[in-house]
Amino acid sequence: MGSHTGQLFAVTTFGESHGVALGCVIEGCPPGLALDLEALQADLDRRRPGQSALTTPRKEADRVQVLSGLFEGRTTGTPIALVFFNEDARSRSYDGVEALYRPGHADFTYEARYGLRDHRGGGRASARETAARVAAAGVARQWLQARYGIEVVGWVDTVADVAAAVDAEAVDRAAVEATPVRCPDPTAAAAMIALIEQARREGDTVGGVVTCVARGVPAGLGDPVFDKLDADLAKACLSLPACKGFEIGSGFAGTRLRGSAHNDAFAQVDGRVTTTTNRAGGVLGGISSGAPVVIRAAFKPVSTHFQPQQTVTRAGEAVTFRNEGRHDPCVLPRAVPLVEAAMLLTLADHALRLEALRGGALQPPKQP
Amino acid sequence: MGSHTGQLFAVTTFGESHGVALGCVIEGCPPGLALDLEALQADLDRRRPGQSALTTPRKEADRVQVLSGLFEGRTTGTPIALVFFNEDARSRSYDGVEALYRPGHADFTYEARYGLRDHRGGGRASARETAARVAAAGVARQWLQARYGIEVVGWVDTVADVAAAVDAEAVDRAAVEATPVRCPDPTAAAAMIALIEQARREGDTVGGVVTCVARGVPAGLGDPVFDKLDADLAKACLSLPACKGFEIGSGFAGTRLRGSAHNDAFAQVDGRVTTTTNRAGGVLGGISSGAPVVIRAAFKPVSTHFQPQQTVTRAGEAVTFRNEGRHDPCVLPRAVPLVEAAMLLTLADHALRLEALRGGALQPPKQP
Amino acid sequence: MGSHTGQLFAVTTFGESHGVALGCVIEGCPPGLALDLEALQADLDRRRPGQSALTTPRKEADRVQVLSGLFEGRTTGTPIALVFFNEDARSRSYDGVEALYRPGHADFTYEARYGLRDHRGGGRASARETAARVAAAGVARQWLQARYGIEVVGWVDTVADVAAAVDAEAVDRAAVEATPVRCPDPTAAAAMIALIEQARREGDTVGGVVTCVARGVPAGLGDPVFDKLDADLAKACLSLPACKGFEIGSGFAGTRLRGSAHNDAFAQVDGRVTTTTNRAGGVLGGISSGAPVVIRAAFKPVSTHFQPQQTVTRAGEAVTFRNEGRHDPCVLPRAVPLVEAAMLLTLADHALRLEALRGGALQPPKQP
Amino acid sequence: MGSHTGQLFAVTTFGESHGVALGCVIEGCPPGLALDLEALQADLDRRRPGQSALTTPRKEADRVQVLSGLFEGRTTGTPIALVFFNEDARSRSYDGVEALYRPGHADFTYEARYGLRDHRGGGRASARETAARVAAAGVARQWLQARYGIEVVGWVDTVADVAAAVDAEAVDRAAVEATPVRCPDPTAAAAMIALIEQARREGDTVGGVVTCVARGVPAGLGDPVFDKLDADLAKACLSLPACKGFEIGSGFAGTRLRGSAHNDAFAQVDGRVTTTTNRAGGVLGGISSGAPVVIRAAFKPVSTHFQPQQTVTRAGEAVTFRNEGRHDPCVLPRAVPLVEAAMLLTLADHALRLEALRGGALQPPKQP
Repeated sequence: MGSHTGQLFAVTTFGESHGVALGCVIEGCPPGLALDLEALQADLDRRRPGQSALTTPRKEADRVQVLSGLFEGRTTGTPIALVFFNEDARSRSYDGVEALYRPGHADFTYEARYGLRDHRGGGRASARETAARVAAAGVARQWLQARYGIEVVGWVDTVADVAAAVDAEAVDRAAVEATPVRCPDPTAAAAMIALIEQARREGDTVGGVVTCVARGVPAGLGDPVFDKLDADLAKACLSLPACKGFEIGSGFAGTRLRGSAHNDAFAQVDGRVTTTTNRAGGVLGGISSGAPVVIRAAFKPVSTHFQPQQTVTRAGEAVTFRNEGRHDPCVLPRAVPLVEAAMLLTLADHALRLEALRGGALQPPKQP
Repeated sequence: MGSHTGQLFAVTTFGESHGVALGCVIEGCPPGLALDLEALQADLDRRRPGQSALTTPRKEADRVQVLSGLFEGRTTGTPIALVFFNEDARSRSYDGVEALYRPGHADFTYEARYGLRDHRGGGRASARETAARVAAAGVARQWLQARYGIEVVGWVDTVADVAAAVDAEAVDRAAVEATPVRCPDPTAAAAMIALIEQARREGDTVGGVVTCVARGVPAGLGDPVFDKLDADLAKACLSLPACKGFEIGSGFAGTRLRGSAHNDAFAQVDGRVTTTTNRAGGVLGGISSGAPVVIRAAFKPVSTHFQPQQTVTRAGEAVTFRNEGRHDPCVLPRAVPLVEAAMLLTLADHALRLEALRGGALQPPKQP
Repeated sequence: MGSHTGQLFAVTTFGESHGVALGCVIEGCPPGLALDLEALQADLDRRRPGQSALTTPRKEADRVQVLSGLFEGRTTGTPIALVFFNEDARSRSYDGVEALYRPGHADFTYEARYGLRDHRGGGRASARETAARVAAAGVARQWLQARYGIEVVGWVDTVADVAAAVDAEAVDRAAVEATPVRCPDPTAAAAMIALIEQARREGDTVGGVVTCVARGVPAGLGDPVFDKLDADLAKACLSLPACKGFEIGSGFAGTRLRGSAHNDAFAQVDGRVTTTTNRAGGVLGGISSGAPVVIRAAFKPVSTHFQPQQTVTRAGEAVTFRNEGRHDPCVLPRAVPLVEAAMLLTLADHALRLEALRGGALQPPKQP
Repeated sequence: MGSHTGQLFAVTTFGESHGVALGCVIEGCPPGLALDLEALQADLDRRRPGQSALTTPRKEADRVQVLSGLFEGRTTGTPIALVFFNEDARSRSYDGVEALYRPGHADFTYEARYGLRDHRGGGRASARETAARVAAAGVARQWLQARYGIEVVGWVDTVADVAAAVDAEAVDRAAVEATPVRCPDPTAAAAMIALIEQARREGDTVGGVVTCVARGVPAGLGDPVFDKLDADLAKACLSLPACKGFEIGSGFAGTRLRGSAHNDAFAQVDGRVTTTTNRAGGVLGGISSGAPVVIRAAFKPVSTHFQPQQTVTRAGEAVTFRNEGRHDPCVLPRAVPLVEAAMLLTLADHALRLEALRGGALQPPKQP
């Protein structure tokens, strides 16, 4: 059931890079939400290629169509099907790829699993698939905002060795969108852009890290033992193309601290329990604490570079292979909406799970 | 459904630290497996406290009992219930904890979610809960070994700043068990032990990283888009207590490489497609490639240290709090079987999902 | 997750009667199936209104479009999205219905659940929704036939008091399609047609029972305890609009037999274990025995008749209401493909579950 | 995942008839419920054999033990594990059965599915398994009562040809328990008892029908399209041993009515929308209407009678077989708590699903 995620805010996606269409079906979006289709399209446009010189020039209109689930502009509680038809699918430019296994790509493993593959543009393994989850996440974003006031903001935190300094409590989307690399630290952004341009000139690619924060998350989200909030966030991030690592709060760096330096002290502020620091990243024991949820996702350098590579053909012959065509030298700016989507879909599902629990409870929670 | 994991090799756990018993029910373990109960107990004993001076002196017999699912020593395909009764539950030593929220613990978030909590020994949030999944993973280990020859080995890779050098292709359990810190690099192990002992003397705690490898995994495991093998591995790791980060293959370090340096070249060896390096960590496009699956899990320093800490009571009063009792200064040695359990349960579930797909397929896979 | 069914052959449907489009996403259809789109369309056409004088004259082209999951005519193992756009949606003829609750319909209960409803043509509660599952079942049918040689045939067994005599072991689709009422017993068919025509003239409606057989089902399908094959068949049938009852094998009539008269004796025929009678309906202990699986589904008389009815408006006022427009006086002929769909989707899901179990087993089953 | 049921009020059962123990794990029971263990035991005792001359004399203490999920007498929201150890397991009396396939039993189909079976007392296929779900349903009963005031009552409606006349709106448990056959119509009860005694004397068995009503169910439960409330009720009933049929409301008899006679008129009573009749059985479009939910489940005559039967051995030889030992001539009285369990577990799960939907909704439902 690999194309299905979520238990109560549940999303199924479909579609191949060069097939007829891609899309998603959202089951469980609560009724009564006045869906802003322009905002939804704006979310999708952030993921789209061709936004700047930093990303691939391929033009995808990706105009989202709503097939079901809306009535007089509001969600009805029935499945919402969103679809975008493929328009600019130049299958021709991928000729030759079907006969071999591109290093760093899923060509070989899809054949190992399925026995056959749709090689056109990477088929189902293409990053283009992520348009469907960004669309679903756009609906989740509007619901989380309307129902709880939750705000989710992601940004490029590192590109290769260049790291940004960003305040997770305050950063907003305007600051993120102010630079084409989606890094709200202008100095770091400039260095990142230079680095990406250099990689492009050299026919090479670079990786980096996206950080994402959710503010306004109520305490109580997350379902121990296996469905901890951070566990589901990790899964959602690692399910993104090219993602190789995940952290919440202090992450790997936190393993070098002493316990006495790591714990966040509790305090009472304005009648609510809160923590004075946030090394936990907003989650304790798998349950949100009310502090901002802060996660990081590592993306490897794009596999499609333009240096010669060794590989084998489907028939098992060793060959030297070199990519052609149009490809991003750095996926990071376009990965920002993907990590946000991972956060949004996970929060939406867990919010509904918490609603079920609280609706049935005979004991009030510590904080509303 | 937080206490349930897996779709086809499905495990449900139950039990609190100081309740009557803990255990698990395994649904979907294939029939005909001759279960070695001694080996299962041995797996459990590795997780147990009190194994060495490095870990807490609490004695838990944790003798596993099989309640169902076995007939004449073999699995029957029906649910396997495993249970261990609590014996050495000194609730008394936790007196006083119920009135406040321990920093770094789930006391507050459980109350925020459930409205009440079993405070005895951490209740359901106790690391003792992991005994149930280690037991389930022990069954998975035996099945994966018998059916596919898969071998899973984990070890302590870092403690605070001390890092080991270990060959993931060759390391075995004997080397891991040779030191009480479960680090197969003797030099690093000695340094780790010294560091842990020092933390203990100072009433403090340390964190670190566990690495785990699975060898002999067939190509084809993993279900794109959302249930990628690495996504489910990340979730399984982050669902472990105190885990704050996850990596597969090159992980965060890989984000600093160029794409031309990162891709693993394909080659044909002995009639099979393989890669000459393994920065991917054995997974491409969310599907296993046949190369060793290599993951890393970051564990924060143990939250229960013996320094004074600021917190609030349930009534909202600020207090200074100091832990008493018996606790590990470092969870890493005992985290090794936990990360192995994350790997084993994930592989078992995905193996059955692949069996379903291949059994129904009308097209043969690239490699058997 | 009401719009989702199946665990391994999993189907999600979407769409309202008078929305933009309806459709489904099939996850888990095994790869390599050469899909016959004409046969798929033919399955859909059987469900379509306007096939004969017995059914509503509304014209629905319902031309199925494949959006994903096919490559060079074969399934790839990735999600198959099927969609049909609404063309002949005369919303106008339903004006006035939005202000009251039609007896026998879901108007009131949808508002009780969702707070609002898409009243146009019944919205999501319309029988038109079933087009999506018939489409999904058409894919299941082709796979079950290609992989196992399974054959599924349904027919109208009773209309009101008129009952047919049909041999479940031998009946085929040609015999079913030979009469517009889809009853392969010509004498009963004539009586049924007369009865339906009379009801239509009187502005009334009638109900009846559909019987459905699956032949060639391998022994071993069905997952005790809760997911017994007959339990999932019952659920699939009761999820059909207007269905009020389900039987397998001897059903309610069997409750009047003595045990000594009810049990099916086992015998060995051609080296295989079989039963000499089939009162069990092909399922023992929730698992298929290899005998034909025979089920029956009861459909109430169509709720939309043309007699005056008492009801209340949304504001709570008592009113007399009378339907207008175009509606079937008897849903039975068009219910045949629906019951077949219930059978097909259930068998497909359980077949894959059996493949998973057998692929992982270390013990061979009694019969292959 | 056959031993798992429910999405939010989720139950996993385990155990064989003559194994060490049986039990269940309940995930998702809301926190704060003061669990009455005596009432729970009383529910279990109704299912127990040996209650009267009408049922098997086997003594099962079936004293339920709570292993987890309770703290100071209240549910905590964590998994509740319930277990009962087997005490009176006379495996010896089943000797000889392992070599052949008993007609009407699951011996053959378990081997066809799993390759091996625990033949002792029917193993997992034994009706003894139902103790686990009755236990889980007892918890559901207490929660549904405490949270919504829902009341569930079942009774024996027919035995063979003898039918009772019972008012579903008024019948209570006291009336049901007043006769050993659990039929609240005293005249019918006497005839049923005579009929069962006669069958016993003749070494034969009889079947019948259980009816069950749920009163006080809020409008809005049920998740169209596939997870309709009646669909899940049908599945829950058909998953009971020996159940061959299911009806809701008018059921099969309703197929003989005209639509004008079948529809239930709506009316407003005390400010609430209600229906003046209840042929729908409390469900419209798969969603509860607020009217009593009325279902019926058909049970075949017990397969274990004492007449000679034809069957084959595992080696394929034809043999004549005759049962020995202790067995019910009629399962109906003990089936009453099973059908109640089917109702209770289904309602509990759907109630939580409705809580999730309403908690997330931005539009109020028609009725609270």
